[in-house]
Amino acid sequence: MKSHTEYLWFNTEKRTQILNITPQLEAALARSKVQEGLMLVNPMHITASVYVNDAEGGLYADILAKLEELAPYGKAYKHHQTGEDNGDAHLKRQLLGQQVTLAITQGRLDFGPWEQVHYAEFDGQRKKRVLVKIIGE
Amino acid sequence: MKSHTEYLWFNTEKRTQILNITPQLEAALARSKVQEGLMLVNPMHITASVYVNDAEGGLYADILAKLEELAPYGKAYKHHQTGEDNGDAHLKRQLLGQQVTLAITQGRLDFGPWEQVHYAEFDGQRKKRVLVKIIGE
Amino acid sequence: MKSHTEYLWFNTEKRTQILNITPQLEAALARSKVQEGLMLVNPMHITASVYVNDAEGGLYADILAKLEELAPYGKAYKHHQTGEDNGDAHLKRQLLGQQVTLAITQGRLDFGPWEQVHYAEFDGQRKKRVLVKIIGE
Repeated sequence: MKSHTEYLWFNTEKRTQILNITPQLEAALARSKVQEGLMLVNPMHITASVYVNDAEGGLYADILAKLEELAPYGKAYKHHQTGEDNGDAHLKRQLLGQQVTLAITQGRLDFGPWEQVHYAEFDGQRKKRVLVKIIGE
Repeated sequence: MKSHTEYLWFNTEKRTQILNITPQLEAALARSKVQEGLMLVNPMHITASVYVNDAEGGLYADILAKLEELAPYGKAYKHHQTGEDNGDAHLKRQLLGQQVTLAITQGRLDFGPWEQVHYAEFDGQRKKRVLVKIIGE
Repeated sequence: MKSHTEYLWFNTEKRTQILNITPQLEAALARSKVQEGLMLVNPMHITASVYVNDAEGGLYADILAKLEELAPYGKAYKHHQTGEDNGDAHLKRQLLGQQVTLAITQGRLDFGPWEQVHYAEFDGQRKKRVLVKIIGE
């Protein structure tokens, strides 16, 4: 069994922003030389999501608007009693989905035609890490 | 390490529908001959979910009603500016959960008494694929 | 390839409650002796979630309040026609997230500074199991 670990860094310009990170994951996979296996992609910060969906700007806006409707910024969350102001970001991460596991087949991410992996940041404007863990052969 | 890959095809009668796909996954597991490992079950289309919950018709109706309440069909989603009409389906997939990973123990899916795997389609009536990736030994 | 399987039991005092189960997972990892791999943590009951977020009491309250708002207890869910009263719990599980997969690097759970694994129970006060499946080397 082979294993391969990488840490990707992202720093979004806006507090809330979606990035297509598929190219970085494909590069990590190439470096791993794994042909058959699984790739876990997990944000190491708890105010962000990694999810798979269409790489389309209108959909990005729809996702952010829906999450803002369901868990608005600036409400009196109990988490704010610690001095934080990002209670909404912790909730948005859970509603969108925390992480994804991807299949590796014949050395490629085994995707349907529209599957792209995204990093969704809900408390950005600082450096954050995403873990890429590959196991296989 | 062994690996095994299958693609299951589904074509729902309705635009929005839930199917119990546990038997197909058990058949794929038997073909893999893996005794200990993990099985990733991932919809290859981004308007569908794979999730684990009770195989009960009332609950299926409750899940679809809740998702329709949270992300209604027919709203003016920005994604529709591309010509699509399925913005709700992209959002429903995220709220329900994108994919699942299952444990394989002694050659069986290692489930509690009520765990069943479902394919939830939100933009159906055409052929869609679900990826099954098994790794183990 | 090594594999290791454990079943953790939890019995919450309240119907709805969040427990930090990171110490139990670290103990299971130590017993597995796996250095590089993946750990699946999956509730074996379908009215509970396993999720990763901050271990902070205010956030626990915010998560439970948000889920109660989105899928209230005591509504006339169709699932209740079976005699159950926990339709809300099945829905809350899906909205929060069903399960997590964790990376194992150099014999440790490969976490960011605030990542902690939680068991969220939505229909408790009885014994429930969580599956821990580790594969790696």
